[in-house]
Amino acid sequence: MSLNPADAALAGRLPAGVLRPLTPAYLEEPRRRWSGQAGLVAAPRNTDEVAAVVRACAEARVGIVPRGGGTGLVGGQVMPGGPAPLILSLERMTALRGLWPQENVLVAEAGMSLQAVRDAAAGAARLFPLSLASQGTAAIGGCLATNAGGVTALRYGTARALCLGIEAVLPDGRVIHDLKRLRKDNTGYDLRDLLIGAEGTLGIITAASLRLVVPPPDTGVAMLAVPGPAEALSLLSLAEGRMAGGVTAFELIAGQGLAFLAEVLPDIRRPLPDAAWSVLIEVGLPEGLPPGDALEGLLVDALERGLVLDGVIAQSGQQAADFWNLRENLPEANARIGAIASHDISLPLSEIAGFIRDAEAALTARAELRINCFGHLGDGNLHYNLFPAPGRSRDAYDDRRKALSDLIHEMVMARGGSFSAEHGVGRLKVAELERWADPARLAVMRTLKAALDPLGIMNPGAVLAPAPG
Amino acid sequence: MSLNPADAALAGRLPAGVLRPLTPAYLEEPRRRWSGQAGLVAAPRNTDEVAAVVRACAEARVGIVPRGGGTGLVGGQVMPGGPAPLILSLERMTALRGLWPQENVLVAEAGMSLQAVRDAAAGAARLFPLSLASQGTAAIGGCLATNAGGVTALRYGTARALCLGIEAVLPDGRVIHDLKRLRKDNTGYDLRDLLIGAEGTLGIITAASLRLVVPPPDTGVAMLAVPGPAEALSLLSLAEGRMAGGVTAFELIAGQGLAFLAEVLPDIRRPLPDAAWSVLIEVGLPEGLPPGDALEGLLVDALERGLVLDGVIAQSGQQAADFWNLRENLPEANARIGAIASHDISLPLSEIAGFIRDAEAALTARAELRINCFGHLGDGNLHYNLFPAPGRSRDAYDDRRKALSDLIHEMVMARGGSFSAEHGVGRLKVAELERWADPARLAVMRTLKAALDPLGIMNPGAVLAPAPG
Repeated sequence: MSLNPADAALAGRLPAGVLRPLTPAYLEEPRRRWSGQAGLVAAPRNTDEVAAVVRACAEARVGIVPRGGGTGLVGGQVMPGGPAPLILSLERMTALRGLWPQENVLVAEAGMSLQAVRDAAAGAARLFPLSLASQGTAAIGGCLATNAGGVTALRYGTARALCLGIEAVLPDGRVIHDLKRLRKDNTGYDLRDLLIGAEGTLGIITAASLRLVVPPPDTGVAMLAVPGPAEALSLLSLAEGRMAGGVTAFELIAGQGLAFLAEVLPDIRRPLPDAAWSVLIEVGLPEGLPPGDALEGLLVDALERGLVLDGVIAQSGQQAADFWNLRENLPEANARIGAIASHDISLPLSEIAGFIRDAEAALTARAELRINCFGHLGDGNLHYNLFPAPGRSRDAYDDRRKALSDLIHEMVMARGGSFSAEHGVGRLKVAELERWADPARLAVMRTLKAALDPLGIMNPGAVLAPAPG
Repeated sequence: MSLNPADAALAGRLPAGVLRPLTPAYLEEPRRRWSGQAGLVAAPRNTDEVAAVVRACAEARVGIVPRGGGTGLVGGQVMPGGPAPLILSLERMTALRGLWPQENVLVAEAGMSLQAVRDAAAGAARLFPLSLASQGTAAIGGCLATNAGGVTALRYGTARALCLGIEAVLPDGRVIHDLKRLRKDNTGYDLRDLLIGAEGTLGIITAASLRLVVPPPDTGVAMLAVPGPAEALSLLSLAEGRMAGGVTAFELIAGQGLAFLAEVLPDIRRPLPDAAWSVLIEVGLPEGLPPGDALEGLLVDALERGLVLDGVIAQSGQQAADFWNLRENLPEANARIGAIASHDISLPLSEIAGFIRDAEAALTARAELRINCFGHLGDGNLHYNLFPAPGRSRDAYDDRRKALSDLIHEMVMARGGSFSAEHGVGRLKVAELERWADPARLAVMRTLKAALDPLGIMNPGAVLAPAPG
């Protein structure tokens, strides 16, 4: 590769052997909203090398875009404009530093994939509960930097709740060593949680101490047709009351999603093909209580209360996998249909039914379109996506796309919700954050950014708009 | 009261009616290590008044010591020296701002006692799981400011894990409004967790949105005699594997603790009076699995494996209460015996048995003394307290107290532990933090303190030593 003089000078100050060819894959993000740009790609082999790269970039005043698996959906991993940054890829830092089954703790380097972390835990008869569609590629460091959520957050929390400690390189190259394997440690400010969810703008997480669990003796899965979202939420309360924390996942599926599957992925089995609304529930229960029996008891109770219209309890591992396969193919079906706009929202649980009702009315009054509303109902987290009316193209909505998204976010925020439940801010939602964040909170965020990264080199333009001047 | 001119000037700038008489109770902490001092006591009635008090103190450069229930054990609530501060008591901010049973959310003002929060939740058939011996007095704001732990952290986490959002007054009087009722919200830096555990040094939490749970249908309690700490930890793994997250508490009790109870509180029932080591386990299980049956199954399994020597499963609510009563009277028995030194330590679970063995050997080689080691074994959190040999007085150990505590902390830190698991740093452990904290982490803490509280008025001298000059 031929470098401009500034990049060549920076390259000369990096540890030997860290540079990688700038291939297109480093400049991509999954939804192809942007293409990134970069001067150099560095892939350090260890934390000291990360620190050396960061120090060199600080001296050269070159921005750093940290990159894990590159699966983020809000553009945190690509910098489309401005001075060309250095991409700092964690791809070579994939070591499992330690595993303590009795402690339910594992220490992973940031570049390890989520699937590799899960596999390492499983090899010791443990479960790392975080679970995402992209887990084969997503790096654990990126999962932490973005506080990833997924389908098991209802029971086990988001990435934040599964992290006991971190090692991280600060914007000046200093290293925080805090890979503790402790459940309780009240010795000063919580820098771990400050870096988690900061999307690489305050430092680079290089390794993490992660919380494992002993997997439940047995799990059970059911698909239940419900009259509507309000009944789905009452069903959730009923299930939580009966299961004592044993509900692992509680996913809402709209009839529109089933119709999309039938249209573009007809081979996917749909056990309740005509349900206007359905729920996928997974439970993991103690020894002595077969999950099938517990789900049967829930189903009988819920049918009596009118919360469920019909239901199928998986009778085999294959059937359970089929139910999950349906759920996990909803995003793929959406992609094949082609969304006008996607939204990753959350709401207080008691606001969800009203929001779904009012948003549908408001949107369909403004445009002919289809709505697929699905996701992690137990967390109040919906993926609320708009699609063209049958026979129309996405482009036909270009002039209304922003107005429709604004309307959705306005209705969400008026009900005390969030415009980014689990994907983060990245570069996609910087303006939304400016618009909606509490002013004092936003001011404190800017103060922290300026205090920890006075040169503004850590993932510039992500989360916070660059400081003026 | 007669005020000096500076305090009189400050008093004149406070909202009308916020001042309270400076009674001795405001200057006390439970272990009587220090007596505090203050110029004024202000008890604002609402968040705007808190902000007004903070702004007035900022203008007058007067330090503020926030005060909840005053039950903290590390002196975070008293300032024994330096310029007299204003004590900002949250005692009038005790409103329940809202309760949403279906959401499992409650919003409480900071001055509400933990017991009042628990009672409000119970009134809606919900559980706020945080549980401490001092909950009748401890304020929820203080529980959050110190990230309180207690006996249910194993299952439900510490205070941090139970808080969804906060309202807080910053050191310049601005108010962060972030009382969200959301499980997922990835919109920028996690200021909530930065203020939680900061012990009032970065701002004052005035209200919090708290996570409730649906209580388990039924709970069960057992006392189990174990051969030693290593077997207790294997028993924990076994119980977690069988119970699928259903273990609520797992408390270690040393034979020395039972002996102290027999000596000073002989009316407390001791079901396994001669156990060298025992465990109190509580489980909360789903509908369809009687906790007594599940504990019976665990007991049989554990007896076969040699992890348990003897056991008693509570057959009634009264018996369960008796078992907890024993556990909760251990600190009172300790107080009556009179400790030489107390330690709130945590360790990686796999280091605990070795630490207990080695620490006892090292300490008894240096001094004739008795050790009572008990606490939240499931969290790796031990209260490790030293007592005089029979017939000797605490004063006889005055010259060795610090050396003994240093030795314990050195052994804990060498094994990757913490010198303050759940009590915090306060003023008691400032030097320990300086000694043991990762240097980069400590430097970042100072940077954050300087950025958010440049005047150094928020709880001066707590957590961090005052900046020189």
